[in-house]
Amino acid sequence: MATLVTPEQFSPVADAEAIRNAVQGLGTDEKAIISILGHRNAAQRKLIRTAYEEIYQEDLVNRFESELSGEFERAVYRWMLDPADRDAVLANVAIKQSIIDFRVIVELSCIYSPEELLAVKRAYQARYHHSLEEDLAARTSGDLRKLLVALVGIYRYDGNEIHAGLAYAEAQNLHYAKEKFDHDAITRIVSTRSKAQLMATFNCYKDYFTISISKHLADDAENQYVTAVRTAIKCINDPRKYYEKVLQSALNKPGGTDEDALTRVIVTRAEKDLKDIKDLYCKRRSVSLDDAVAYVTSGDYKAFLLALLGKEN
Amino acid sequence: MATLVTPEQFSPVADAEAIRNAVQGLGTDEKAIISILGHRNAAQRKLIRTAYEEIYQEDLVNRFESELSGEFERAVYRWMLDPADRDAVLANVAIKQSIIDFRVIVELSCIYSPEELLAVKRAYQARYHHSLEEDLAARTSGDLRKLLVALVGIYRYDGNEIHAGLAYAEAQNLHYAKEKFDHDAITRIVSTRSKAQLMATFNCYKDYFTISISKHLADDAENQYVTAVRTAIKCINDPRKYYEKVLQSALNKPGGTDEDALTRVIVTRAEKDLKDIKDLYCKRRSVSLDDAVAYVTSGDYKAFLLALLGKEN
Repeated sequence: MATLVTPEQFSPVADAEAIRNAVQGLGTDEKAIISILGHRNAAQRKLIRTAYEEIYQEDLVNRFESELSGEFERAVYRWMLDPADRDAVLANVAIKQSIIDFRVIVELSCIYSPEELLAVKRAYQARYHHSLEEDLAARTSGDLRKLLVALVGIYRYDGNEIHAGLAYAEAQNLHYAKEKFDHDAITRIVSTRSKAQLMATFNCYKDYFTISISKHLADDAENQYVTAVRTAIKCINDPRKYYEKVLQSALNKPGGTDEDALTRVIVTRAEKDLKDIKDLYCKRRSVSLDDAVAYVTSGDYKAFLLALLGKEN
Repeated sequence: MATLVTPEQFSPVADAEAIRNAVQGLGTDEKAIISILGHRNAAQRKLIRTAYEEIYQEDLVNRFESELSGEFERAVYRWMLDPADRDAVLANVAIKQSIIDFRVIVELSCIYSPEELLAVKRAYQARYHHSLEEDLAARTSGDLRKLLVALVGIYRYDGNEIHAGLAYAEAQNLHYAKEKFDHDAITRIVSTRSKAQLMATFNCYKDYFTISISKHLADDAENQYVTAVRTAIKCINDPRKYYEKVLQSALNKPGGTDEDALTRVIVTRAEKDLKDIKDLYCKRRSVSLDDAVAYVTSGDYKAFLLALLGKEN
C-alpha cells in the first residue's frame, strides 16, 4: 500500500497557479509547495508541470531548481520528474559517485518489473545519450562489473512458473560456486533466472543446507561483489524488508543521516508500498518511521518527507 | 532493398481460400502455396493466417506442418510466423544444438535494432516461458557465455553520436586486451557501446595499428570466443557483407549445403536488404545468388527460395 494521500478534487491549472504564487516575488512559500505536491500522484504532477509550462512558458522543474535549495530541492526534483526519468537520474548519480552505490542498480534489476527497468533504460538513453549499461560498465571493474551489467542488462522472464528440479540443481550449483569462489556461476544464475525461480532456488538452498544463501555468503562480506550479490538476493526475496533495512541504515548512519538513500526510498515507494515498509519498520524498531524521520531531519525537507509518508499535519 | 515481390491487389480471404484448396484432399499443391506465400509480406501473411483461422477454424501453420515436409516445410514455417516469433524460434534452435550456432545470437544483438531485439526477447518469453538470456546462459560456458549473454542482454543506445576521444581510448583498450587475452575487457566494449561508437572505435583501431581489429584477432581464430567476437565485429561493421559471407559458406559447405543458414538468411532478409546482399554476392563471386541457390537445392524448397529471392518464373 501507498502512503501518498491525494485529494478527490484536482485541477492542474489551479495547482499551477498556486505554485506560481508560491515561487513568485521575494522569498518562496515552501509550505504551499509541500501542501500541493506532497499530495499529488505521478500522473497529477505531470499534468501540473504541463499546465505550468503552458501558462507561464517556463519549466517548473527548472524554476524549482533556482528557487529551492539543499536536500529539500533535491527531494522535490526527484519527486517532480517522471518516475522512469527520475530513476534514470538516480542511477546516473549512483554510478558517478567515487564509490558506486550499487544498491540503486540492484533495485532496478531485482525489485522493479522488467518493463519498469526497460522504461528506466529508455529514459536514461534519452537523457544522457548513452546506455545505462555502457556507463555502468565503464565505471566498474572485475566481478562486480560483470554482476551489475548483467543484472541491469537482462530482460528477465516475469512469469510465475517454477521448475522444482532446476531450483534444486541451481541451489547445489550456487553452493558449489560459493565454496569455489566461482563468481561467474553465481552471476549467471542470479542475473538471468526469473524472480519466482530464484525464490524457489533460495528456498531449496535453505532447506538443503540449513542456512540461507545470504547468511552463508556473509562470511565473505568484506568483498564488494559478495555484498552486491547479497543485496540482489535480499531484493528478490523480500523488497519491503530490504527497503526497511535501507531506511534503518540511512537514518542511523554513523556520522550523519544518509539523505540520499532516505529521499530515494521515500520518493520512489510513496506511491507503491511505503505503507507496508512503514508498518514493518514500526514492528521491527518499535518506533514509527515518521518519528524516526522527524528526529533526524528538519525544516522544509522534513515537512516534505512527512507529507509523502502520509503523516497528517 | 528487399527482393520480395508483392502484388498490388491483395485479399486475405481469397488467399486463405486458395491455400485451403491447395492443402485439401489427396496430395498438396505446393506450387500454389509458393505462388501465394512467396509473394506476400509479413503483414499480409499475418492477415492470411487470421483469415484462414476464422474461416476454417484451424491454424494454418499447424496445417502446413502436417502437409509439408523437409526443408520446404521448415522454410514455410519460418516464413509464416510473425518475424519476432520466428526469430525467437531461430534463437531457440540455435541454442539447443549440440554446438550452439552463436551467429544467430550475434545477429540479433549486432544487426537487429535494440527494439527488434527486444521484440524477439518478448516473443521468446511468450513462447518458451523462459528468458532468452537464461536459456543461453544455461547452455554455454566460460568467456563465450559472458559475451553472448551480454550481447543479447544489453539494450544498446541507438543514437548516432560519436565520441572521438572515447573511440581512440577504447581502440587502445581493445588492442591491449587482445595482447593480454583480457576477454572481459573486449566483451565489455563490444557488448555495451552503441553501434555507431563501435564503428568509430574499429576505424580508429585500423588507423592506429594499421590492421583491422578483425584481422588482428584472426591469429587466434581457433578460439570459439574469438570467433564469436569477430562475428560481432563483422555484423556491426557491415551486415550485408556479413550475410553475403554466411550465404557463401552455407552454399559451399564441405559435406553438403547448410540449409539452416541458407533458409535463415533468405527468410529473415527477403523483406529487408536481400537485394543488396544478392548484388554483393554477384559482384564478389561472379555468379548470381539465384543460380548458386538453384544449383544446390531442388524441388519445392528450391522454388520457394527462388520466389523469395525475387526470381521471376
